[in-house]
Amino acid sequence: MELKLYVDRMSQPSRAILIFCKTNGIEFEEVKILLAKRQHHSPEFAGEVNPMKQVPAIVYGDFKLFESHAILIYLASAFPGVADHWYPADVRKKSKDPLSVGLAPLKFAPWCRLYFPFGYIFNDSIAIALGLPLNPKAAAEGEKLLSASLAMIKLIGSREMGAFLLGNSEPSIADLALVCEITQLEVADENDRDRILGPHKRILKWIKTQRMQRALF
Amino acid sequence: MELKLYVDRMSQPSRAILIFCKTNGIEFEEVKILLAKRQHHSPEFAGEVNPMKQVPAIVYGDFKLFESHAILIYLASAFPGVADHWYPADVRKKSKDPLSVGLAPLKFAPWCRLYFPFGYIFNDSIAIALGLPLNPKAAAEGEKLLSASLAMIKLIGSREMGAFLLGNSEPSIADLALVCEITQLEVADENDRDRILGPHKRILKWIKTQRMQRALF
Repeated sequence: MELKLYVDRMSQPSRAILIFCKTNGIEFEEVKILLAKRQHHSPEFAGEVNPMKQVPAIVYGDFKLFESHAILIYLASAFPGVADHWYPADVRKKSKDPLSVGLAPLKFAPWCRLYFPFGYIFNDSIAIALGLPLNPKAAAEGEKLLSASLAMIKLIGSREMGAFLLGNSEPSIADLALVCEITQLEVADENDRDRILGPHKRILKWIKTQRMQRALF
Repeated sequence: MELKLYVDRMSQPSRAILIFCKTNGIEFEEVKILLAKRQHHSPEFAGEVNPMKQVPAIVYGDFKLFESHAILIYLASAFPGVADHWYPADVRKKSKDPLSVGLAPLKFAPWCRLYFPFGYIFNDSIAIALGLPLNPKAAAEGEKLLSASLAMIKLIGSREMGAFLLGNSEPSIADLALVCEITQLEVADENDRDRILGPHKRILKWIKTQRMQRALF
């Protein structure tokens, strides 16, 4: 029985799932669902895999699951050989770890935390790939929201001692999900990226930890 | 050792925690943190219990936790006697059940799903309790978002057979969290409530299931 990952590498939560599997030695078949070609709306995908018409989604035998955070939790819980720090077995640690607590400050942001760089990136870069016009005004609005959000992430770390979210000494699935969101900025122009990430030294340091780099590249 | 719940009954996630404990026979002490009196900003609460200055939060011996969904998962996992349907022990069922999957459609809404009736209720009613002016224009905007969101919930149910979210035959923590959000509309005028909820027959039926009513009242 093979694990099938329905993903588009352009999608940051798709990358989080791919990286998680590779890092943890989970074998899988990558099934590309190209968003730019609207393959997520195809009857095969929408009908058979994910009625929500989103990537990532997984199929494992007769088991189907969508929502990247649910998938990360499932993979960490169900596959042997996943190191405990990704999603601790201990109930107390697990409760502290989930994406909901690790990324809690972001929920105060005036948009859904799951896609927080989207407004900026979409209107600054990605729209072109989808054949849509760029929208500089919306990109500027998106940048404001993104910068406010990054400032809140800094706040998480500054209260804690460890290099990772919630002061952990090793990354959890929340670190992985968040770093994939932020590195979506790779799509942007280098100057733009430096302008946005530059003020957030702690976040830059966190992205550049050896553990994170090893997972990402 | 006693479980302390730091809550304000005006807060819908606080009510979800209180109801969960009562329904499952979990003993607790209710510590009222009155948001209208800004007690969530007090040094005792913000310093000792929850640096995020939010309710609900819990303290159980030396263990502290905030974020209502994390708390629900913790209570369901750590306390004996909680029926399995609230948060199934089975990894596959658990993965399907979390608030993230059960409420996934709401994340497409242009605001954070966690507080989705807030824009309407706040500007229509709650602002008065906090000594702030009402804002009919913002309330009208909030109502539009809320109605769009309710339409998405209907969509979840219509694909499935069971009376509860994801087609389950018994409620999960996602049902409880969502019903507490929606019943926040009790604060609104009856006519307003009927106008908003009226078109959503499936949701009204879901709220009125015996199981839900028994839990809520």
